[in-house]
Amino acid sequence: MNMILLFEGDWVESGRRVRLGRRRRKHILQIHRASLGDELRVGELGGRTGQGRITFIDDEILEMDVVLDAEPPPASQTTLVVALPRPPVLRRLLIAVTSMGIKKIVLLNARSVEKSFWQSRALIEEALFDQCVLGLEQARDTRPPEVWLRPRFKHFVEDELADLLADGTGFLAHPEERGDRLAEGSQPALLAVGPEAGWSDYELAALEATGLERISLGIRALRVETAVPALLARVGAIPSAAPRMSA
Amino acid sequence: MNMILLFEGDWVESGRRVRLGRRRRKHILQIHRASLGDELRVGELGGRTGQGRITFIDDEILEMDVVLDAEPPPASQTTLVVALPRPPVLRRLLIAVTSMGIKKIVLLNARSVEKSFWQSRALIEEALFDQCVLGLEQARDTRPPEVWLRPRFKHFVEDELADLLADGTGFLAHPEERGDRLAEGSQPALLAVGPEAGWSDYELAALEATGLERISLGIRALRVETAVPALLARVGAIPSAAPRMSA
Repeated sequence: MNMILLFEGDWVESGRRVRLGRRRRKHILQIHRASLGDELRVGELGGRTGQGRITFIDDEILEMDVVLDAEPPPASQTTLVVALPRPPVLRRLLIAVTSMGIKKIVLLNARSVEKSFWQSRALIEEALFDQCVLGLEQARDTRPPEVWLRPRFKHFVEDELADLLADGTGFLAHPEERGDRLAEGSQPALLAVGPEAGWSDYELAALEATGLERISLGIRALRVETAVPALLARVGAIPSAAPRMSA
Repeated sequence: MNMILLFEGDWVESGRRVRLGRRRRKHILQIHRASLGDELRVGELGGRTGQGRITFIDDEILEMDVVLDAEPPPASQTTLVVALPRPPVLRRLLIAVTSMGIKKIVLLNARSVEKSFWQSRALIEEALFDQCVLGLEQARDTRPPEVWLRPRFKHFVEDELADLLADGTGFLAHPEERGDRLAEGSQPALLAVGPEAGWSDYELAALEATGLERISLGIRALRVETAVPALLARVGAIPSAAPRMSA
């Protein structure tokens, strides 16, 4: 982790001193190879980032004096809608898109999503949050994304998608032969990425009917954890990377 | 795998009938749940793609009648130069970039690359090839990338980089606060991506001296397997996805 994320229960003295155990103590000692007096980057869940100086270590805990004086990196304005992938892919995907600054992730059903994926323990709230924490620590961010589970495609598309778009631009990714030519602009409101095999005809039609523009990276079938970062970069959803301009 | 890749030793009747064992037989039966008479996508290493119809199965082998009548998907013209990541990341990265159509990959040393990574078994030629095969099967491609190992940064930059650029456009990715504004164009000749922590000042200067243009996805530190697909999409290196145009 590139930053140690601090939680409400960590404070010994609010805003000034924290006490950490287990995963973070072990990580700081074994991976960072830090010792008494060393400084590490820290951030408060949902708040600011800064530095922590190690003031105490024993066999169970580690304490740091903390100064939080910086804002976390800018967030993406783009909502990611993605067909629920199988659990190990979901775990990697959540880390990746959280690290890229996405703050709203909708996990959606689609015809080619296996029913069993919806029963996975990876979808328990704590499990989703743990993956998002890894993504935040990776990118030195503090604000976790909301993750929505939407096992009913039709309900989501008919009842919620229009509000997420809010008259902004939305894109719909689907593998196909023709490449796309994206219009230039600011961060789009929404990007919808289908299962590896692509959306069904019904799903494509339903999504296009809400005004989403179809885009493609070509005919190659890419793994979801490869396709999503590429598509987010392509539509300009990554914060602080200005949109591409023409020559 | 979305396609079964066929090798020279598989042919029972050249260009017409193959015999498969072990990994591919098991995969076809257990994952595709295919049986006698079923058709599967196949491709010949370095050659065309097509269909195979299963004509024989026993406990050890599986035979298919094969028709190869299509070209593999278009390739990227962009060489990827990337600081050698740790072995598990390298494995995923090779699958990802092979599936995206990259045909030349240079694994380069950098100051923050751990020396032990160069001793990894993941760098044995067979191990590199196996990962590339997974990427080809993923994207229904047949042409494996070349993978160059360059443990001496200075030698590569001074002796080989200019030839790879060949007066084309090359980009150098580095995390930094300002976003970039990429000029529009066709696929660049080269993209160089540093270690997760970024290039050292010396490395940046040496690479920029060869004419590479600096680009950035912002200040967020992204995992290599997330950053590389995003950067390839951003510079327009993905084949058959036309470059972005201005509105």
